Amino acid sequence: MNTPLFKKSNLTVALVGATGAVGQELIQLFDQFQFPIQTLIPLASKNSVGKKIRCLGKDWPVQELTHHSFSKVDLAFFSAGASRSLEFAPLAVQQGAVVIDNSSAFRMDKKVPLVVPEVNPDDIFQHQGIIANPNCSTIQMVVALQPLHQESPIQEIRVATYQAVSGTGAKAIEELLNQTQQYVEKKEVLSSVYPAQILFNAIPHVDVFLENAYTKEEMKMVLETQKIMHAPNLKISATCVRIPVLRSHSEVIWVQTEKKIGVQKAIGLWNQAPGIKIVNQPEPGGYPMPLYAQGTFETYVGRIREDLVDPKSLTFWCVADQLLKGAAWNALQIAGHLVGFPLSLKQKSA
Amino acid sequence: MNTPLFKKSNLTVALVGATGAVGQELIQLFDQFQFPIQTLIPLASKNSVGKKIRCLGKDWPVQELTHHSFSKVDLAFFSAGASRSLEFAPLAVQQGAVVIDNSSAFRMDKKVPLVVPEVNPDDIFQHQGIIANPNCSTIQMVVALQPLHQESPIQEIRVATYQAVSGTGAKAIEELLNQTQQYVEKKEVLSSVYPAQILFNAIPHVDVFLENAYTKEEMKMVLETQKIMHAPNLKISATCVRIPVLRSHSEVIWVQTEKKIGVQKAIGLWNQAPGIKIVNQPEPGGYPMPLYAQGTFETYVGRIREDLVDPKSLTFWCVADQLLKGAAWNALQIAGHLVGFPLSLKQKSA
Repeated sequence: MNTPLFKKSNLTVALVGATGAVGQELIQLFDQFQFPIQTLIPLASKNSVGKKIRCLGKDWPVQELTHHSFSKVDLAFFSAGASRSLEFAPLAVQQGAVVIDNSSAFRMDKKVPLVVPEVNPDDIFQHQGIIANPNCSTIQMVVALQPLHQESPIQEIRVATYQAVSGTGAKAIEELLNQTQQYVEKKEVLSSVYPAQILFNAIPHVDVFLENAYTKEEMKMVLETQKIMHAPNLKISATCVRIPVLRSHSEVIWVQTEKKIGVQKAIGLWNQAPGIKIVNQPEPGGYPMPLYAQGTFETYVGRIREDLVDPKSLTFWCVADQLLKGAAWNALQIAGHLVGFPLSLKQKSA
Repeated sequence: MNTPLFKKSNLTVALVGATGAVGQELIQLFDQFQFPIQTLIPLASKNSVGKKIRCLGKDWPVQELTHHSFSKVDLAFFSAGASRSLEFAPLAVQQGAVVIDNSSAFRMDKKVPLVVPEVNPDDIFQHQGIIANPNCSTIQMVVALQPLHQESPIQEIRVATYQAVSGTGAKAIEELLNQTQQYVEKKEVLSSVYPAQILFNAIPHVDVFLENAYTKEEMKMVLETQKIMHAPNLKISATCVRIPVLRSHSEVIWVQTEKKIGVQKAIGLWNQAPGIKIVNQPEPGGYPMPLYAQGTFETYVGRIREDLVDPKSLTFWCVADQLLKGAAWNALQIAGHLVGFPLSLKQKSA
């Protein structure tokens, strides 16, 4: 059990969406962890053909994504949106690749494991060709909640998010930076990615609206959490809000467990849990902040308090780099398990 | 009952903190509503003496705040921090003025009414010289909750805030604007008001930390709400977060009432309630946003949904201009009741 399904040191790896925000992070991670790739095939739209991707000491020409891109591929990372995953991931599997998909396309498919390695690593090995990487806001929340859930089953979760523009992609990062420049230069502030100016604003709307008046992002936090934690009856209520932060998500979480855990016990559990860093001093700066989580791998917890409504519940503040733990790093961790390549955070360079 | 304690059309009004962010808003409101002031006495520290304040068609010289500033004053607005209120407000009362205090100094004093006119206007007339204006995050929350509370008593409130820098004052607005300019000009980004850069960041820390690991702002939302709503046993849990927004606060609120109210009924109640505007379309832009609440008087509610954890509860998004409804406008509304000068939102100019 949990034996890597293939163990190779000479992998051929395809990267669909190589020029996007998450794709760029994956390329850096391949380098940083010296991931055992022999051949990298960066795939993108026709427009990017001709570009070269520097990774692992070589330049890899960007190729156009086609129905025949995967014939020699062992492992394919998909990070180019749900519609491309829906079209091309099954073809990649047919052609012999294992797919780690960062989009929402297959996350709720019963045949597809949805994995956060700190929570449900064993699910990786149940795959039938595709493994889904969860939604970013969900990943950091389940990393933080799993140690509590193991101590006493979680019954209720309420969460309000403070999400960075990086979750929308490279164009949204550019939009926030452009708006900042336009504002300072007293020019008209232009919005095209978001329905309103995001600079100096908060937009309570992430992904599309669904019939129950929740957004798709909010329902991802409900349904994906239930699937990852193997807790189909877990009650979760989320409100997702975009704020003018470049790339780390923050969350205010209330969690009710079956038995009371308490602040001190929770701190002990988090201290021993993988991938978690506690910053919890009741003083200025003694809490995680999205600006300083940028470029790091951990999920941070702080502002840990007993809930004043329900003394059995805890409330806390949770921060993680959306592009790393919320996307590329989680995907690489899955790949590490899959190919038997250990990824220790101690390996990471500064 | 509720007869104005004094009704004058030739008021002498002192404004302590005339050069601060809230003071400046009050001066604009005096103009906008043609508040019946015969003599305005702007009071500030020695440094501001020599400045003139333009209001109601005249220039009023800023005077130094001293122990003898209030001998001819009917009504004094205090908006210069708790320590100045503690020192000077009792003196103002001794000298015959009624004080409307925007600081936290007297809010929890049993002899001092704490008033949001949409919620507990009758309390105004119980004053013994001082009437306290609540904390900004509390004001907009109780305006939104009161119509539900009247329908069925509220039992539990959970709230996560998204607070603008204006809540900290004019220096914090300047700090965010300076950081924006420094960032664009690729200069070092400097922080002095906040313990960290606020541009592109979220700081889960508003006001000082207390012994229970909550901040004073979070406990204000608990204790002030209980007092204003006359509900000492109401259970409230708050996490307060500062975000890079210039001047309106936003909040994600979960509210449990004794009996289920439901989304449609709540919308009906909010539609008829004073000072509330509903923006609740499940489509891009169909919700309140802090950037567009700037300069308006209403408390906005949107993203109204049934709570997925507890179907008896509602969850929604609430936005208001922190400097207006959260401070100056609420104070002026109190003054309007006090002197029998009706302030209708219909009077407001564009």
